[in-house]
Amino acid sequence: MFFEGSEKKAEIIIDAQKASLLKDYDDEFWGALVAQCEAKVLSKISNETCKAFLLSESSLFVWNDHLLILTCGDTQLVNSVMFFLNHIDKDLVQQIIYQRKNEYCSHLQASHVLDDTKQLQTFNQGKLLRFGELDSHHSYLYHLDNDYRGELNDKTYEVLIYNIDPAVSALLTQKNIDNQQIRKILQLDKMIPDFILDDFVFEPFGYSLNAIFKEHYFTIHLTPQEHNSYVSFESNINLIDFIPIILGIFSPASFDVITYNELDFAEKLSHVIPPEYKTKELVETKLSCSYLVDFASFNREKIAFTQPFEINLEDNTNVF
Amino acid sequence: MFFEGSEKKAEIIIDAQKASLLKDYDDEFWGALVAQCEAKVLSKISNETCKAFLLSESSLFVWNDHLLILTCGDTQLVNSVMFFLNHIDKDLVQQIIYQRKNEYCSHLQASHVLDDTKQLQTFNQGKLLRFGELDSHHSYLYHLDNDYRGELNDKTYEVLIYNIDPAVSALLTQKNIDNQQIRKILQLDKMIPDFILDDFVFEPFGYSLNAIFKEHYFTIHLTPQEHNSYVSFESNINLIDFIPIILGIFSPASFDVITYNELDFAEKLSHVIPPEYKTKELVETKLSCSYLVDFASFNREKIAFTQPFEINLEDNTNVF
Repeated sequence: MFFEGSEKKAEIIIDAQKASLLKDYDDEFWGALVAQCEAKVLSKISNETCKAFLLSESSLFVWNDHLLILTCGDTQLVNSVMFFLNHIDKDLVQQIIYQRKNEYCSHLQASHVLDDTKQLQTFNQGKLLRFGELDSHHSYLYHLDNDYRGELNDKTYEVLIYNIDPAVSALLTQKNIDNQQIRKILQLDKMIPDFILDDFVFEPFGYSLNAIFKEHYFTIHLTPQEHNSYVSFESNINLIDFIPIILGIFSPASFDVITYNELDFAEKLSHVIPPEYKTKELVETKLSCSYLVDFASFNREKIAFTQPFEINLEDNTNVF
Repeated sequence: MFFEGSEKKAEIIIDAQKASLLKDYDDEFWGALVAQCEAKVLSKISNETCKAFLLSESSLFVWNDHLLILTCGDTQLVNSVMFFLNHIDKDLVQQIIYQRKNEYCSHLQASHVLDDTKQLQTFNQGKLLRFGELDSHHSYLYHLDNDYRGELNDKTYEVLIYNIDPAVSALLTQKNIDNQQIRKILQLDKMIPDFILDDFVFEPFGYSLNAIFKEHYFTIHLTPQEHNSYVSFESNINLIDFIPIILGIFSPASFDVITYNELDFAEKLSHVIPPEYKTKELVETKLSCSYLVDFASFNREKIAFTQPFEINLEDNTNVF
């Protein structure tokens, strides 16, 4: 079966003076929320500030004042968002940020971002932006257009990589590979030595990791199969510093970087992007809710001919 | 309405010793064939070797031994191909080449290339190749896997350009622009001074041109609107020589080159690609029917930030 690795993502911020997502909602509620998009909770880790649920399709993180949910495959994340909005006093919702990455096979998705947006608009008025051109990597971002102002130190980093080195793909799709082996390949000890880890190896392949440390989160989702490989890293610690490690492990053909409130985006990237990667997209804006959002997409320059990919017409369900 | 400029394309080669597409099929037949994919004939030019029909969605060219049809928008070209195959002795069909370019909005198409391929496979066994990675510009190519061997001098050139300079987009979408003005913008006198021309300016915008000279054809289809602009050039004369003119006119953000039987693809391109364009895809193969096929995709390197594109949620029918 073809598996769409790229995520839909929602962040919802509430008024923590009047409610607490950790205290007012139990795990049964979060399980029901996740079920709305046909995912389920596999495991959970927590500390004093954060609960992190590892899902059958990605991750859910809950803090007192906000939640973050990422789901991949053909999940309809917007259904989980609407479920939450139906279970909270409307006045407590300060901001909704809903993102959707361009997909490998958008024609196989149950909805388009415009359909999702129509549902979100029934709650309140928002804006929909596209970062990146329609013919290349891009990310849709919907946010409420209200007078909420985000905090400058509320930072988010995403590094999304495509078409990883076939040798690494082979390594990660081998039978019986376990989480300890994958942790080692990912060099987690270099990136997040102090974090509590929770991970899962999927059958026949695929891997998800949640990690938390104090108020910090770090999550990886790995769709390793050759020809439609995809790996996402997301965190509120600075992932730009880890780009050399990530590129060193995976040597992807292309990758994207998305940040919220990283004030030195271009300058910081200039130190970590190897010269063989060329900038295809470079977009920046300040949202009306004050978040500074940056998007960049990089492609490795081709210097030698490759062969076309022949689609197996007897079994064309995995790769298009 | 969102309009998908990128074309589906079919070339069918028959045994000219036993039949003639020009003599054995009349214009009524070609009109009926075109109607199968819900396009219609707008006008026709012809000479002693070729008939060229300008269509409401692109073009149909007919020679004695082969036909070439290109259709854009949400046409289902495969229906026209199947109509033709149902009206000819199966033994006369030597080769079918069916191509489909990656689309801006594949989720809006009535079928995927795999659906089309399933229909074509009911006629005879073929192969489906993808030139270019799934996450970037790519072209699907289906061909019959038989013992037909194409001629080395049967060459085809495609230059497909995306995201043209907004100033040129504004020029080409102005009200009441006529075909003479567009011909001048396209510098046709430099490229094809000796060709017979047939062109059409669409409402509210868009332009198609067919041109023929002896056994040569040349066709341009222009979807000029900003944010999803696309212009295709296709010919059996060497379009690589015209790339400097084309880039000079349109200054696109990205473009692709596809050739059949161009033996010096990389070498010839090296003389005409400006340094600001970086090679994203470079694919070459010899099909089992002997055609050498090359595909290259180029992106202009971004050096400055752009703003995201805001989607008008009141009227989101034109651009995604």
